[in-house]
Amino acid sequence: MSDADKLARNVAETLLAQEGTGPAFGIEIEEAREGYARVRMKVRADMLNGHAMTHGGMIFLIADTAFAYACNSRNVSTVAQNANISFLAPSKEGDVLVAEAQETALVGRSGVYQISVRTTDGVHVAEFTGLSRSIGGPVVASQN
Amino acid sequence: MSDADKLARNVAETLLAQEGTGPAFGIEIEEAREGYARVRMKVRADMLNGHAMTHGGMIFLIADTAFAYACNSRNVSTVAQNANISFLAPSKEGDVLVAEAQETALVGRSGVYQISVRTTDGVHVAEFTGLSRSIGGPVVASQN
Amino acid sequence: MSDADKLARNVAETLLAQEGTGPAFGIEIEEAREGYARVRMKVRADMLNGHAMTHGGMIFLIADTAFAYACNSRNVSTVAQNANISFLAPSKEGDVLVAEAQETALVGRSGVYQISVRTTDGVHVAEFTGLSRSIGGPVVASQN
Amino acid sequence: MSDADKLARNVAETLLAQEGTGPAFGIEIEEAREGYARVRMKVRADMLNGHAMTHGGMIFLIADTAFAYACNSRNVSTVAQNANISFLAPSKEGDVLVAEAQETALVGRSGVYQISVRTTDGVHVAEFTGLSRSIGGPVVASQN
Repeated sequence: MSDADKLARNVAETLLAQEGTGPAFGIEIEEAREGYARVRMKVRADMLNGHAMTHGGMIFLIADTAFAYACNSRNVSTVAQNANISFLAPSKEGDVLVAEAQETALVGRSGVYQISVRTTDGVHVAEFTGLSRSIGGPVVASQN
Repeated sequence: MSDADKLARNVAETLLAQEGTGPAFGIEIEEAREGYARVRMKVRADMLNGHAMTHGGMIFLIADTAFAYACNSRNVSTVAQNANISFLAPSKEGDVLVAEAQETALVGRSGVYQISVRTTDGVHVAEFTGLSRSIGGPVVASQN
Repeated sequence: MSDADKLARNVAETLLAQEGTGPAFGIEIEEAREGYARVRMKVRADMLNGHAMTHGGMIFLIADTAFAYACNSRNVSTVAQNANISFLAPSKEGDVLVAEAQETALVGRSGVYQISVRTTDGVHVAEFTGLSRSIGGPVVASQN
Repeated sequence: MSDADKLARNVAETLLAQEGTGPAFGIEIEEAREGYARVRMKVRADMLNGHAMTHGGMIFLIADTAFAYACNSRNVSTVAQNANISFLAPSKEGDVLVAEAQETALVGRSGVYQISVRTTDGVHVAEFTGLSRSIGGPVVASQN
């Protein structure tokens, strides 16, 4: 594993440990490297909408989490400016959602990331595009 | 209150009662009428990101909830196809977020809704645009 | 007319005169004031797609033009960062498209604008949401 | 070349020949195959905005053209429902823009395509995400 990828993993784990949402929703990091992150979350009853399908907000949240880990992966604090999501197929309680974020552009302080959300059963739930802006400062204070 | 607005309120309350997310996050309906909904949610510690600000996924979720109530307001089951969100200013634990959804287009089975998210202190947190598609069938079975 | 609205009109006319696209496509300013612009364009044969409907790119362009005039209306140079468009109904050669831009948010250097595109026959063609960022410097050098 | 890729090329050439915009703007097909298209366009004076940079509408148009060829590549008539674009870096008169469209999702009648726009000098101008919906019927009447 390269130093850049170790740093990315360290950043993702640090963000997950510090945030309220990840632990509350049982989010786990599958992989995190420079410009890339893959996370998973099991759909619970309290994540459903009024039609007994996973709430769009929860699908967005798991994608946004992968986006955050990927766009902060170089240990430069980076925030989301805009996100766009298309909902493609429903998922339900008990399904495991996997969100995979890949960097498609990095120009100056702006980055674009494409995140796919699928169930582990192969249902393609959503596609998410995120636009990020780096604001400077490290995420992880010390990088020994 | 017109019958159309009573029905919209009934639909919103029904969706809120049936869904997992609204009760889990303490979402309350402030107003719901035909093509319109306004909801609120108090930001808790388990809704924060790794920078101690409200997680983008939670901001999306409250906007998406208002969107769902507005686009289902005529009691025709309607789902989100696409959503776009711009994050404008941070909010924090204890802030009360208000999401207000207004219909800007309704053409055939497609609808467009503009949702603003602000704190009750007047911070403009985000703007969200949703594209919906009606799939037919009622949300509320009986409307007596 | 307020000074702010006169300035906005001046900015819009200056941008239109300087740009290649507006004159090339016969774009006309109907109204321009602070945070608002409305423009029109007649659909020509060279603006059609392969299905003989107005090309999505041309619908975007007229919306983006209204967006540009609205977000530069305070005479602070401002650029588009992101735009989202939903296509709702087709239009055809000879139709006159009117794009109306309204400011929905202005927070620091970021702005959000909602632009509707309709034909003068009342067809709701598209809804467009633009995210802008001011970069400083005037559009109109002198404002006497 | 597979039959599927030959058909995709045929569809793209047919759409380009039938449309008003492609010939008007000098758009050329570099490559077209199943779920993929790459097109180019040289930036002319009449494609510039009021700041002497390529107009956002023209950047959108070249991306949207690649999107159309890719999402119609299986010879099933398909239209754009929604598109999202982030503008990353300016381009200018004389630059050659290349838009490359790749399919990232195909679920039922919905498709998602990621389109990057770059100059041949390597400037990453924009990223575009398109959501399509197939409406049935062939683009190319006969497929001998």
